[in-house]
Amino acid sequence: MSRLDSFIRRLEAQRACLDLAANLVAAMSGPVLELGLGNGRTYDHLRALFPGREIFAFDRALAAHPDCVPNADRLFLGDMRDTLRRLALPAPAVLVHADIGGGGEAASRAMAQELVALVARHLAPGGVVVADQPMAEQGWTAQSPPGGVAVGRYFVYRAGVPRA
Amino acid sequence: MSRLDSFIRRLEAQRACLDLAANLVAAMSGPVLELGLGNGRTYDHLRALFPGREIFAFDRALAAHPDCVPNADRLFLGDMRDTLRRLALPAPAVLVHADIGGGGEAASRAMAQELVALVARHLAPGGVVVADQPMAEQGWTAQSPPGGVAVGRYFVYRAGVPRA
Repeated sequence: MSRLDSFIRRLEAQRACLDLAANLVAAMSGPVLELGLGNGRTYDHLRALFPGREIFAFDRALAAHPDCVPNADRLFLGDMRDTLRRLALPAPAVLVHADIGGGGEAASRAMAQELVALVARHLAPGGVVVADQPMAEQGWTAQSPPGGVAVGRYFVYRAGVPRA
Repeated sequence: MSRLDSFIRRLEAQRACLDLAANLVAAMSGPVLELGLGNGRTYDHLRALFPGREIFAFDRALAAHPDCVPNADRLFLGDMRDTLRRLALPAPAVLVHADIGGGGEAASRAMAQELVALVARHLAPGGVVVADQPMAEQGWTAQSPPGGVAVGRYFVYRAGVPRA
């Protein structure tokens, strides 16, 4: 499989997992967190999936397309370990999407492990975590990825709800 | 359609057009040119599609993944208008893939227009051009994109062969 093939499958998996998450939390209320705004493509997808919700975006530095930059009061720049630690949400999050990869596999896994307790602190009971890295946490259950998504390509967890 | 949706469709279209091109030139001999190496994902796909051929890659500066960097004698860095003008190929190219976009739509279209005569100079009769921008040239005929590729999303041309 070429890198182009692999990249397309990763993006398709990401989208399928976000679409699944939107269904899982449809009946809940609360904001969405985007960890790793990047160029803003998935932020734009989240805006389309969650038209009525607040979406808070986090990244080390702003690199998003001008059309995909959140309002300043919903954009948190800097080390995510710091910004998540200081974050005060209006209500617990129903979805956290963590797209952390890019700095090499080992570094990305290590960062995910550093973030997982901070994510758990902001997640509502029944809330969903969609991540490009494994992010197992006590009280979360791994959800089966949507059909067509290979095991280990993208990850879905739910807080305090039995395995689907 | 979100930017994520649109990006996935663009990559799927790119891959489908390259796969089509590989079939169109299968019986011809000659090298492949990759204009816009970028991160090297499509270069890696071209390596998989054309295992026996020389692939020459061009870009303003090297930004490719370490696994996707061509040998120095097949890598041409700098302004493509200059490197293509000075290029001496061992044989005319059977395929030129031009992935130019990124600097804004108007700038990308203008660059494509500047490159088209240089591409034509290096293309074999019956050779194929796959491009992210319109690149009409005298003697080239637009090919129908593969099934599933929306009109205007990616472009395929063939030199000196009637419309498919």
